[in-house]
Amino acid sequence: MEIKAIIEEILKDKKEKGGIKQVYMAACGGSYAALYPTKVFLEKESSELVSSLYTSNEFVHSQPKALGENSLVIVCSHKGNTPETIKSAEVAQAKGATVIALTWKPDSPITKHADYVVEYTFGPDKDIAEEKTMQVLTIAVELVNQSEGYANYADFVDGKSKIDRIVKLAMKHVEKRADKFAIDHKDDEVVYTMGSGASWGSAYLQSICIFMEMQWVNSACIHTGEFFHGPFEITDENIPFMIQISEGSTRELDERALKFLNKYAKRVEVFDAKELGLSTIKESVIDYFNHSLFNNVYPVYNEKLAEVREHPLHTRRYMWKVEY
Amino acid sequence: MEIKAIIEEILKDKKEKGGIKQVYMAACGGSYAALYPTKVFLEKESSELVSSLYTSNEFVHSQPKALGENSLVIVCSHKGNTPETIKSAEVAQAKGATVIALTWKPDSPITKHADYVVEYTFGPDKDIAEEKTMQVLTIAVELVNQSEGYANYADFVDGKSKIDRIVKLAMKHVEKRADKFAIDHKDDEVVYTMGSGASWGSAYLQSICIFMEMQWVNSACIHTGEFFHGPFEITDENIPFMIQISEGSTRELDERALKFLNKYAKRVEVFDAKELGLSTIKESVIDYFNHSLFNNVYPVYNEKLAEVREHPLHTRRYMWKVEY
Repeated sequence: MEIKAIIEEILKDKKEKGGIKQVYMAACGGSYAALYPTKVFLEKESSELVSSLYTSNEFVHSQPKALGENSLVIVCSHKGNTPETIKSAEVAQAKGATVIALTWKPDSPITKHADYVVEYTFGPDKDIAEEKTMQVLTIAVELVNQSEGYANYADFVDGKSKIDRIVKLAMKHVEKRADKFAIDHKDDEVVYTMGSGASWGSAYLQSICIFMEMQWVNSACIHTGEFFHGPFEITDENIPFMIQISEGSTRELDERALKFLNKYAKRVEVFDAKELGLSTIKESVIDYFNHSLFNNVYPVYNEKLAEVREHPLHTRRYMWKVEY
Repeated sequence: MEIKAIIEEILKDKKEKGGIKQVYMAACGGSYAALYPTKVFLEKESSELVSSLYTSNEFVHSQPKALGENSLVIVCSHKGNTPETIKSAEVAQAKGATVIALTWKPDSPITKHADYVVEYTFGPDKDIAEEKTMQVLTIAVELVNQSEGYANYADFVDGKSKIDRIVKLAMKHVEKRADKFAIDHKDDEVVYTMGSGASWGSAYLQSICIFMEMQWVNSACIHTGEFFHGPFEITDENIPFMIQISEGSTRELDERALKFLNKYAKRVEVFDAKELGLSTIKESVIDYFNHSLFNNVYPVYNEKLAEVREHPLHTRRYMWKVEY
């Protein structure tokens, strides 16, 4: 079923019951990060919807009082088997909420607890416009547009038609930089990532899922707006940063942080959405496309870094190996 | 003016204009962290209010579409001079929102852009029940109670009557542990903090304002629910963690992370709200009191750590010294 039709059906079904009043999202790690642009979209663009993003186990244990038949709950699990996220879908349905599950695996366990299942593209040949980040964003765009109107709907559709080409050109564009980055950072014990706005999530993912999880390198994701209120005191010539310079509303925050880093740090890797070609997407919606760009450019770096460090990305010491 | 009376006046004033529909909060760094319990309170306990917490400069540059005369905007700046937070109050007022400013300094610049000013206690002899965290929480509790009803209002008032004594006993209780921690961690180059739920903010503050800002020690704040979805792969016998075991809804998340750390890490400092005496506060509201406890116990450690490391807490290389 198309996303547009799913939302039409949900709104029709809920019409006599007060409609959809809350949107709750629950996922873990990389899937949590993929929901982040949608969190920002709903907070910024909806005039009526209550919305929140939770790491799944927090949603399970600390459910919002309003969770009920007027709630839409969006859960996301790549292989559809994350226990906390399955449980989130279960508790949501038990409270009468409508559940949409995003998963790459049709018929995975999470689909048993979902009213609707939305699949997405994944892997080397994926269509970026149909990745999980864009699919969940499309759910929110449809919901806002169909329930209260979204003035930039056509611009969003236009952006989706462009994002795949933009991202794939950008991935080629950074290849040589990524080679150099890998060599320059092979012995680092800490790397910080930085971002803001609707694309903070891609910096978060790079920090927790790549550096910490897949490379065992210490890391934190610093919000460029928070940087000057604590974290910036860590800056010196040796500490490496990867900083996202987003296009759109919060670019000024990112540029301010970069200006500081260019003065006091020496090891700064810049991911500038403008230079990477995002700007053909309309200003009204560009905020929401940064994540897809950054999130697909990082892997070019990550492959090379893993190779130079001789630490393959699938190496784990706990996950898949011990009980926890 | 008392907080209760402020909310009464705001709700009376807005009655014919549609009431308060959104609560936006904006602050930076430590003040941002102090607003975090209130963010969780509103998301969980209100059935009607749209609410969001922003780092101030993101609020300024990426204002929610709904910001207007039905919005209450709460800003917080300790000395009332944080430029991005002052600007947040300004843009909120320009859009017709009602602004409450929390500051320790009466007549500080931010008060010029506020409809109401709420002061708070600070310093060694402060009353914990009137610290900024509790003051802003009280604003939210009054708002929810007066507008839609809050069943646990009396329990919250009861909790406030107990928190000062609990915290001050806990501060004494940890003194010897703090001495040991300081000696054991004086040469560490990285320390992680961990927390969840309504007290995630105190772990965040300890990470960015103490380790990164005041000690120049690498750090990240890890959500105990997210831990198993990436960060936990960093765990080994040498990496130090400070973990909050909160009382209330998300305790199970914290305990699960601790169980893992007790097995695979060797350097774990535990802050257990139950052992530190929080449990005389009623279960219905205890979630919201963890932050005040942890946030006041950390400083006992921080003073000792700064002393042993011979790196006073007020040492800066950029703040107060260079333009940024």
